[in-house]
Amino acid sequence: MTSPVTSASTNSHVGREDRMLLKIEEFRKRRPRLIDELITLAHGAGGKSSAALTDNVFVEAFRNPELEQLGDGAVLALPSGERLAFSTDSFVVQPIEFPGGTIGHLAVHGTVNDLAVSGAVPQWLSAAFVIEEGFAISRLRSIVADMRQAADAAGVQIVTGDTKVVAKGAADGLYISTAGVGVVPAGRQLGADLVEAGDRLVLSGALGDHGMAVMLARGDLAIDADEIVSDTAPVHEMVAALLTAAPGTRWMRDATRGGLGTVCNELAQTAGIGVILDEAALPVHPQVLGACDMLGIDPIYVANEGKFVAVVPEEQAEAAVAALRAHPLGVEAVVVGQVVPEPPGMVALRTPFGGSRIVDMLVGDPLPRIC
Amino acid sequence: MTSPVTSASTNSHVGREDRMLLKIEEFRKRRPRLIDELITLAHGAGGKSSAALTDNVFVEAFRNPELEQLGDGAVLALPSGERLAFSTDSFVVQPIEFPGGTIGHLAVHGTVNDLAVSGAVPQWLSAAFVIEEGFAISRLRSIVADMRQAADAAGVQIVTGDTKVVAKGAADGLYISTAGVGVVPAGRQLGADLVEAGDRLVLSGALGDHGMAVMLARGDLAIDADEIVSDTAPVHEMVAALLTAAPGTRWMRDATRGGLGTVCNELAQTAGIGVILDEAALPVHPQVLGACDMLGIDPIYVANEGKFVAVVPEEQAEAAVAALRAHPLGVEAVVVGQVVPEPPGMVALRTPFGGSRIVDMLVGDPLPRIC
Repeated sequence: MTSPVTSASTNSHVGREDRMLLKIEEFRKRRPRLIDELITLAHGAGGKSSAALTDNVFVEAFRNPELEQLGDGAVLALPSGERLAFSTDSFVVQPIEFPGGTIGHLAVHGTVNDLAVSGAVPQWLSAAFVIEEGFAISRLRSIVADMRQAADAAGVQIVTGDTKVVAKGAADGLYISTAGVGVVPAGRQLGADLVEAGDRLVLSGALGDHGMAVMLARGDLAIDADEIVSDTAPVHEMVAALLTAAPGTRWMRDATRGGLGTVCNELAQTAGIGVILDEAALPVHPQVLGACDMLGIDPIYVANEGKFVAVVPEEQAEAAVAALRAHPLGVEAVVVGQVVPEPPGMVALRTPFGGSRIVDMLVGDPLPRIC
Repeated sequence: MTSPVTSASTNSHVGREDRMLLKIEEFRKRRPRLIDELITLAHGAGGKSSAALTDNVFVEAFRNPELEQLGDGAVLALPSGERLAFSTDSFVVQPIEFPGGTIGHLAVHGTVNDLAVSGAVPQWLSAAFVIEEGFAISRLRSIVADMRQAADAAGVQIVTGDTKVVAKGAADGLYISTAGVGVVPAGRQLGADLVEAGDRLVLSGALGDHGMAVMLARGDLAIDADEIVSDTAPVHEMVAALLTAAPGTRWMRDATRGGLGTVCNELAQTAGIGVILDEAALPVHPQVLGACDMLGIDPIYVANEGKFVAVVPEEQAEAAVAALRAHPLGVEAVVVGQVVPEPPGMVALRTPFGGSRIVDMLVGDPLPRIC
């Protein structure tokens, strides 16, 4: 199968432009290099700079098979043979409250969803707070109540925690780090290495609501879009429904920081396959699309906090979508693309006009601090 | 057994002063109330204000049996019957590097030690970083190398992580949150409810090195004490040696934020017993004692990052101390006190002159951001 994005390189007449394309392609297959000397906002944005930092600093130093899977959570084997998923995230969203949720909801949903897409049943969470001196205790109480409510809805318990306070000016209100532990049912196998050409990519719902809701809540953009509401939600029930309907599911990931575009790039690079997304199939709410257009941001890179992508065998794709649509959070679920053998490590978007363009990982940070 | 601190209240002539003492005592048995409206540095100091915040905000909202143990880590039962310990801490120490270690060492040792004193064999860690824009990547690399080194020495793997970047002025360099999972060996039972009158308190080494090393490293005190070095270290080997030598061990806790004084108060309140510490037995290095004297701080409240307290049956105390002393990190181990039935919830210090004074939980924060 020939991918449309490599047509130039298969041409027998290899000119200067073609050689350059080949070089670019080779370059893209490699994980990005870390050339910066100082941390920038881009290193926290989930794109190319984040990947470079993760690869060159963290994975390089900590090096072990579990970490090198680079999944949303590590899967660990206990002496009894039971398997656990273990995951963590820090939340620094600004503002702390936004349409559709708060940092409290995010802190629970983020870790619950990482465990769920790792194939685990989420069970226990830890919560560590870094609070700026002067933060109102009533506001903290309200955020902690959001965490409890989110934990109840996700069927998890917050069983251990920590609180640190830093002086005024040493934090921006409140940061929350959660970690989570879940149990992976016996026999469940998921992994980028199981992904095959021909597999379909199923997306659980519309793109970009969370990122745009937070961006607009900052109020420094002259866009009035009250109707854009964060999609922050736990995906564990949708994941369970999908795994029942499509037992051959290969791999899952929630499309948070960096959006669907980044997730697909990570899949393509880890699995050594290509991904073709169908632009016409991508669900984006009109208000989100409008706001993205005004800001010059592609919704494919905007963060979601209640959406995930699953790679399923072609013959199970229809059942997977049907199972997701039967859930209140999955009514907009759809097949958004497919896995192709070539070119490995690349993601292309097929446009409604029959053309295609490369969906690369972002270098910069269009929407800082959205989670 | 009559505790010296309640002699007034056992007097048959109950005057005005005595009634007040009785009232104070009743008050002290209760967990502190939260009367503040805003977060202050004291809420992160590990003393009375921290306990009030934890009780009134976090435990109140999250309420579940594992959390209410208020241990350093939650102990969780898996479907297989296997038990896990799960713990988390955020690290905001300032400065990030100090004599004897860095925030990287602390972030690993802190969580490893919480797991160890929960009775678990520490196995896996997560690490979530909140980094301020402009932080040098070479410095990050060095701190991450410290984490790897500390993890290797403690026999744990850092298997999952996260990185967030916040703009200049929204963090103080670097904060690290670690969470950890360990396996609790079958049959191991520890808990404040197992503590009995007559039990001995064994301390694994000298007090206050970490807190004073960090305090002096800030350089805003005109004290030159290069020889004060943080004790940051993993205690898991000492814990294992102690549990072998003193299989009847009731309860353990590492004496970090708030020091030995706070840990003993937490024990007394949770177990509903009294604790008498022997001031003459408390090991404190002369330089630390000198610096504490100059600053007007009692070393009993100063943080340690490689020391723990164990409550052991009287007849196993000698073996426990011997086992600790056989370890390079435990050569200064000593019995520092005992458990008494009355008055419940209180800690007293017996001075070398035969008197005694109450060791209450601190309200304020003598040493902010030491971990």
